[in-house]
Amino acid sequence: MLKQISGGVCAPKGFRANGVHCGIRKNKIKKDLALIVADNRSATACVYTTNLVKGAPILVTKEHVKDGYAQAVIVNSGNANTCNPDGVEIANAMCALVEAHTGIPSSDVVIASTGVIGQRLSLAPIEGGMEALVKGLGDNGTAAAEAIMTTDTVVKELAYAFKVNGKECHIGAMCKGVGMICPNMATMLMFVTTDVSITPEMLQKALSADVKKSMNMVSVDRDTSTNDTLCVMASGLAGNQTITEANADYRAFCRAFNAVTTAMCRKIARDGEGATKLIECQVSGAKSVKDARLSAKSVINSPLLKAAMFGADANWGRILCALGYSGANLDVDKIEVTFHSKAGDLAVCKEGRGIEFSEEIAKKVLSEEEIIIDVNLNDGNYKATAWGCDLTYDYVKINGDYRT
Amino acid sequence: MLKQISGGVCAPKGFRANGVHCGIRKNKIKKDLALIVADNRSATACVYTTNLVKGAPILVTKEHVKDGYAQAVIVNSGNANTCNPDGVEIANAMCALVEAHTGIPSSDVVIASTGVIGQRLSLAPIEGGMEALVKGLGDNGTAAAEAIMTTDTVVKELAYAFKVNGKECHIGAMCKGVGMICPNMATMLMFVTTDVSITPEMLQKALSADVKKSMNMVSVDRDTSTNDTLCVMASGLAGNQTITEANADYRAFCRAFNAVTTAMCRKIARDGEGATKLIECQVSGAKSVKDARLSAKSVINSPLLKAAMFGADANWGRILCALGYSGANLDVDKIEVTFHSKAGDLAVCKEGRGIEFSEEIAKKVLSEEEIIIDVNLNDGNYKATAWGCDLTYDYVKINGDYRT
Repeated sequence: MLKQISGGVCAPKGFRANGVHCGIRKNKIKKDLALIVADNRSATACVYTTNLVKGAPILVTKEHVKDGYAQAVIVNSGNANTCNPDGVEIANAMCALVEAHTGIPSSDVVIASTGVIGQRLSLAPIEGGMEALVKGLGDNGTAAAEAIMTTDTVVKELAYAFKVNGKECHIGAMCKGVGMICPNMATMLMFVTTDVSITPEMLQKALSADVKKSMNMVSVDRDTSTNDTLCVMASGLAGNQTITEANADYRAFCRAFNAVTTAMCRKIARDGEGATKLIECQVSGAKSVKDARLSAKSVINSPLLKAAMFGADANWGRILCALGYSGANLDVDKIEVTFHSKAGDLAVCKEGRGIEFSEEIAKKVLSEEEIIIDVNLNDGNYKATAWGCDLTYDYVKINGDYRT
Repeated sequence: MLKQISGGVCAPKGFRANGVHCGIRKNKIKKDLALIVADNRSATACVYTTNLVKGAPILVTKEHVKDGYAQAVIVNSGNANTCNPDGVEIANAMCALVEAHTGIPSSDVVIASTGVIGQRLSLAPIEGGMEALVKGLGDNGTAAAEAIMTTDTVVKELAYAFKVNGKECHIGAMCKGVGMICPNMATMLMFVTTDVSITPEMLQKALSADVKKSMNMVSVDRDTSTNDTLCVMASGLAGNQTITEANADYRAFCRAFNAVTTAMCRKIARDGEGATKLIECQVSGAKSVKDARLSAKSVINSPLLKAAMFGADANWGRILCALGYSGANLDVDKIEVTFHSKAGDLAVCKEGRGIEFSEEIAKKVLSEEEIIIDVNLNDGNYKATAWGCDLTYDYVKINGDYRT
């Protein structure tokens, strides 16, 4: 039993949050500082970007979650605090501010920053904003979710209720996209809270297994960010018997966790910079999971296909092309491609060859906001799904002068 | 001694060419059929796309050049003859037409097609166009170069004169870009002619070695085409002593060949779909050639950097980000980045950290049409150069409805 409920990171028992505008950004109506605190030290697991260039906050967070526990998360937007001479110093100072205002030891603080790379992050606005940030702590997950947005156009938060051996548990999350999105072992910034009782080891195991099929399968532009961080905290207040092994309870938690990450993947892709469409590529009939994932990700990564989707052009040749250079082990002469959307289904390719279709129906199917590209490799039993978006004028516009 | 001369594939002794509009394209003013013929069977070497989806013409060409010799090249634009049930049949029929009209055995004909994938290529217009095509054979390299253009905005041909052990030799080429460009072991379509005397083995050796540092280092959109073919024919009429080993003569030829391919790389990148700028990334100080190439190519492939270049935004953080996920073995804390253009030089990053620079000068430097991104990894002695272009509204426009 898995039920979506309202709210985000504050939906599970034992978490409060808030978000404020402290002045890192000039734009006063845009919040830029978020805080999540747990009532007690919580089992905590994280995954991070594989980019060799890592934001200073990641180095600090790794230290702080080494023991598998944390109690607070502080995040700023507007500046990634990356490639700066004083990055670690500033990140540590931010954690110290959390300790000063909440009493939570800075060594139990998870920290993340997102925004422009290579510009120094000044501590002053953060210092100035802490009092209001802490005073407002409560059921304010939405304010926190707003404060981590960069070019995101919609707030990304959600929550589910689920049962672990009869006990009602909750899981909530907030995250931000939306450019430089091609996560590898982690996503942009995502923070998940749950009241499930689980050991840090099992929590890390669940997280690391899940990102392979969720966050690592989203791509907006094939640029793997320097600050990607996905952090999950488990307060244990749901009262279930602590999950210590890969049993039925663990699997129930994993199902709930995957529901959260998959829903977020769709939100991120749909809100990709400049995107007008969510493109979901479902690959089946692959020789292995690896082949299925390579194929699905290659299709949603093709700039030519992304541009064709923007133009509602059923240019399926570009899908075969992307499959052909994906590196996946596949037999071109077995490939079958069908488009699906609210407006209907359109088969365009069988046995690696084009088949007749109506351009009129094609336009209708591809003009919807959610397009499923259904690729059957007819060569095995493995599946994978990847999420992306179309490539539009606005992607270029947004990124032509993001910094200046 | 290496001297650029006028003309293209007809500059070397022993080659005639022509291009006509035969009706594969509806647009009557756009030529769509090209032919190059050699006076004698010529040593011939080819490299092709690594895409698993290969155009039918590639399968036929591979057969025809197996013995290391060919005497004619026929190319059509407007249709890639790829992913069609009758592709090989049509490609063979095109070679048979060359034999019927020129007497050159179809087994000595190289064939290539470029254009939309997955639409049947009708033989009728080609049959109808052959007579005019063959009748016009002569010093018409430019007509042939025009006939292979797709979304190219400029004709791409060039020629050089060079000396091999005192003998004057010539090399000429034509090629087409300009989308779906991320060659791997070959480029889009490029045909090189030379009157140098060289064995097929040494010609293939020269070609295969050269593409690694030339064509494989160009990228417009990271989409590796299904029809990439680079073919070089050597008539041997220059009268030099036949090159049979990797001696000084061989190196003289390789230098001339590399001058041709490098110049073409720049033309292709500068004419990338929608491009307003040529971006050249020069990486030095790498631990290995592989690391240098991975780094340079990752930088010119980053959509975020490409968009920033379009906006003349010195967002060097995106360069470090691209280097970080390139897969190259490098030390982030040693990276140095400088922009160069006609308008001046701009150092933006030292030891992996940002340094102060004037936004005003940055705008001036990055508003030029040719931008060099100079990356010194300060970690070894290997270099590589990659060529790309900016990402613009027009790339999206061109590819949003290429087919329809």
